[in-house]
Amino acid sequence: MPTVRERIRIVIFEAETPAGRFFDVSLLVAIVASVLAVSLESVGPIREEFGDALIVAEWFFTIAFTIEYLLRLYCIDGPVRYARSFFGIVDLLAILPTYLSFLIPGAQGLTVIRVLRLLRIFRVLKLARFLGEANILTQALHSSRHKVTVFLGSVLCIVVIMGSAMYLIEGPEAGFTSIPRGMYWAVVTMTTVGYGDVTPQSITGQMLASVLMVLGYAIIAVPTGIVSSELIQAVRNPTTRSCTNCTTEGHDWDALFCKECGHELPEPAIEPGPPA
Amino acid sequence: MPTVRERIRIVIFEAETPAGRFFDVSLLVAIVASVLAVSLESVGPIREEFGDALIVAEWFFTIAFTIEYLLRLYCIDGPVRYARSFFGIVDLLAILPTYLSFLIPGAQGLTVIRVLRLLRIFRVLKLARFLGEANILTQALHSSRHKVTVFLGSVLCIVVIMGSAMYLIEGPEAGFTSIPRGMYWAVVTMTTVGYGDVTPQSITGQMLASVLMVLGYAIIAVPTGIVSSELIQAVRNPTTRSCTNCTTEGHDWDALFCKECGHELPEPAIEPGPPA
Amino acid sequence: MPTVRERIRIVIFEAETPAGRFFDVSLLVAIVASVLAVSLESVGPIREEFGDALIVAEWFFTIAFTIEYLLRLYCIDGPVRYARSFFGIVDLLAILPTYLSFLIPGAQGLTVIRVLRLLRIFRVLKLARFLGEANILTQALHSSRHKVTVFLGSVLCIVVIMGSAMYLIEGPEAGFTSIPRGMYWAVVTMTTVGYGDVTPQSITGQMLASVLMVLGYAIIAVPTGIVSSELIQAVRNPTTRSCTNCTTEGHDWDALFCKECGHELPEPAIEPGPPA
Amino acid sequence: MPTVRERIRIVIFEAETPAGRFFDVSLLVAIVASVLAVSLESVGPIREEFGDALIVAEWFFTIAFTIEYLLRLYCIDGPVRYARSFFGIVDLLAILPTYLSFLIPGAQGLTVIRVLRLLRIFRVLKLARFLGEANILTQALHSSRHKVTVFLGSVLCIVVIMGSAMYLIEGPEAGFTSIPRGMYWAVVTMTTVGYGDVTPQSITGQMLASVLMVLGYAIIAVPTGIVSSELIQAVRNPTTRSCTNCTTEGHDWDALFCKECGHELPEPAIEPGPPA
Repeated sequence: MPTVRERIRIVIFEAETPAGRFFDVSLLVAIVASVLAVSLESVGPIREEFGDALIVAEWFFTIAFTIEYLLRLYCIDGPVRYARSFFGIVDLLAILPTYLSFLIPGAQGLTVIRVLRLLRIFRVLKLARFLGEANILTQALHSSRHKVTVFLGSVLCIVVIMGSAMYLIEGPEAGFTSIPRGMYWAVVTMTTVGYGDVTPQSITGQMLASVLMVLGYAIIAVPTGIVSSELIQAVRNPTTRSCTNCTTEGHDWDALFCKECGHELPEPAIEPGPPA
Repeated sequence: MPTVRERIRIVIFEAETPAGRFFDVSLLVAIVASVLAVSLESVGPIREEFGDALIVAEWFFTIAFTIEYLLRLYCIDGPVRYARSFFGIVDLLAILPTYLSFLIPGAQGLTVIRVLRLLRIFRVLKLARFLGEANILTQALHSSRHKVTVFLGSVLCIVVIMGSAMYLIEGPEAGFTSIPRGMYWAVVTMTTVGYGDVTPQSITGQMLASVLMVLGYAIIAVPTGIVSSELIQAVRNPTTRSCTNCTTEGHDWDALFCKECGHELPEPAIEPGPPA
Repeated sequence: MPTVRERIRIVIFEAETPAGRFFDVSLLVAIVASVLAVSLESVGPIREEFGDALIVAEWFFTIAFTIEYLLRLYCIDGPVRYARSFFGIVDLLAILPTYLSFLIPGAQGLTVIRVLRLLRIFRVLKLARFLGEANILTQALHSSRHKVTVFLGSVLCIVVIMGSAMYLIEGPEAGFTSIPRGMYWAVVTMTTVGYGDVTPQSITGQMLASVLMVLGYAIIAVPTGIVSSELIQAVRNPTTRSCTNCTTEGHDWDALFCKECGHELPEPAIEPGPPA
Repeated sequence: MPTVRERIRIVIFEAETPAGRFFDVSLLVAIVASVLAVSLESVGPIREEFGDALIVAEWFFTIAFTIEYLLRLYCIDGPVRYARSFFGIVDLLAILPTYLSFLIPGAQGLTVIRVLRLLRIFRVLKLARFLGEANILTQALHSSRHKVTVFLGSVLCIVVIMGSAMYLIEGPEAGFTSIPRGMYWAVVTMTTVGYGDVTPQSITGQMLASVLMVLGYAIIAVPTGIVSSELIQAVRNPTTRSCTNCTTEGHDWDALFCKECGHELPEPAIEPGPPA
């Protein structure tokens, strides 16, 4: 019969049992609710109307998350490793700001406290725990990381050159007050965001901007094509078939012999079909 | 010989006969015309000039759609099931507002009536009936729903974190008056819409915004890649049909004879959706 | 020995001979130059400085294109069919406005003339003649026309519903003065253009706008996926193999027997390979 | 034993040895730092505060890059061919402006010098040297250059026609002061950048703009589809390798044995680029 500590561990860390699933869903709801509370508190009229209720909600969530954090430390086998892991630090940062606002009172400290309080927003990162089905996506992104680096490097070069050129052509009168500001404009334009807070005024500037826009428009195709082809590869990729002689993986579904050692391959265990 | 009720049913619900096709096209034209009338009535100068004609048109369409709704209820075998179905409710909502504007007159009620009247716009949803060829599209979207959920969840996390960060960095002076407004800015920026009604003013804010833009620009690639790979899968998968003579697989859905041995193929077990 | 008429016909309509290629390239340069001249004439300072030269250039191009048009009519076998064809009408519309500006003088007629003059811009459509390598592109677009129709229909429905909803929520104070204007805003937002000339001001409006932005952002994936999968099909598609017995086309490259009649297929004439 | 000249050549031009890799990374850091220095110098408050330090940094980088340029000329076998190559010219342009600012002093020359100084930004192009993994990308872009040309030509035609039409419809009052400005607006709209500095005011103009936006939105699909299908072709095409025993084709580039009969495969005739 499991001990109380073992039972708590199963509820918190395992999602297979009914109690574990209930805990996970409750935690998810609590995280979303606490983020919502912090967001609403920043809206002036809502703070004036419901300020007290929001402070109560904040303390309720902070205490609940504190209990959860302590229980995690108590029931896991390696509490130090958990406390140093990414989610351990996020869990701690999510509860600290509210306590710090209690220790450092005073009128002038309020603004700082609001800043710290905002770190609770990182609770939302806990959501990542619930997104377990992203395997194919991350695999495709991982195997295309070299091409994406080349792509981002090229984008950066174009941004630096175009930003400097526009700073020279347009000058401070049109809002291009410095090269970094020109680079900001180049990013805004090339990503097709186009705020319109800095725009070219001269004919030359508008021609160069048009070239940059068409370039940015065409360049969207590149990362899309990369991810598409990687996803198609990831969907099709037959990594499960391995040679019984040399253990090489990744043989085609219709292959009869190992492409590495020439040994006969076993029948594929499961019929491929669109794995999607 | 079919009864009158049966004849009406065939005209309204079947699109195969000439009369049924004529009815469907007429209904489509009537829906578009009524939506157009409601839209034009909202334009000030047009309402002053053609106000009476538009009111006549509105009553004409309302009465015509009412007759159509009653005929549907009369001739279908399960009228209650139809009335509770999605299109049954839409058909009812499309005619109710005009009658309600008759029952609740008065100056102060006008605004409410205009709101209800606008529900007639949902008539446009009837259009979905005429879009029968969307099978592959919906199939591809359905089989990629998990990946799309993961994707939208990630986008939401980034929006919450970036919106809060910008609220802290820029503050109310630059238009970031609350966290929800910061999140609105993050959505506007990340989707590359870029209205320019809220823009970062400080160097730090512009750098963070640039990162968000490039992120949003790169992230467009992900849903595109997902849908592309799913569509390619949906167009392709002919793996289930096999020849009874030589057991070769992968015949096209419309193939009658085996492409390897020329033997006649059996009928496909399930009818596929229209492939491309 | 070919007659003069035959020789002119070869120069104008055939692009294989050196003289024919020279004629095509000269025509292309002349079209671009005439479009450039019309464009520059519309710029105020340039018209004041170089107005006379631009009028001379306009008459030069008009007379040159008139001679070309008459030669086409003279040397082609079916001049009436050419004159009624799309490019025949475009060729005529490209020269008419300048002559009309001669017949209808006077101060008040000038604006009208400028309008007609602008039709010369359609000369640019002649460029389409030189774009002969677009076969795979047009094939892919043609075979995806049904899916694109469904897609555009859905986009239209969303635009109508969202435009009306924002007209109700925001009202004339925020710039949503009518339903058509709301629909214009919905198109601007959904296509991620985002001018910022009409933007939501209320919290509700901004939330609805955020939904529309994410929707538009995700929906970009659909046409991209359609065109990608069609292009991949078009590159791979073996339309040239036809059965000698029943003339069915579209057999796979590795097929040995006709999938329609079971007759043995001839060897493929050319080895497929990636046609790209 | 290698001479000093040979040793320097290996350090500068070869990246395989530890010294060569250290040199490459140092050069990369120096380029980024010098670009950063030029950018920061253009920001007013930073120039006033750290102006002297930035000038020192500029001279330090200029002298370092000069030494590097001279060493390259000294140790390479064909110095003239290097000096005339693209990177030779870029290396020279990157150091010239600072020396020119020394030769041409005076108050009125300062603006010109700042322009020349900015050419040092081209140092960033040296980054391209470090991006060696772009093979598949460039291969896919190269084999799709015809389709991209057709695509850009179509975009240009639409821009010219739409820009002229909007100049006619909206006129100078709405900001469409000339046809080139109308074309600038068409590019801004079609690429979905949407600054909002020039926007249609009339109903007709807004309808035409909506058509252009939907067109631009749909047209994004075309280059994306082209690059996707080319990338998938580039990753896949293993059609040329055939088994000498059973003549089966389509083996992976890294396969050593035939997947059909287990016979040893011959070496591939040409080495492929890194496949994904």
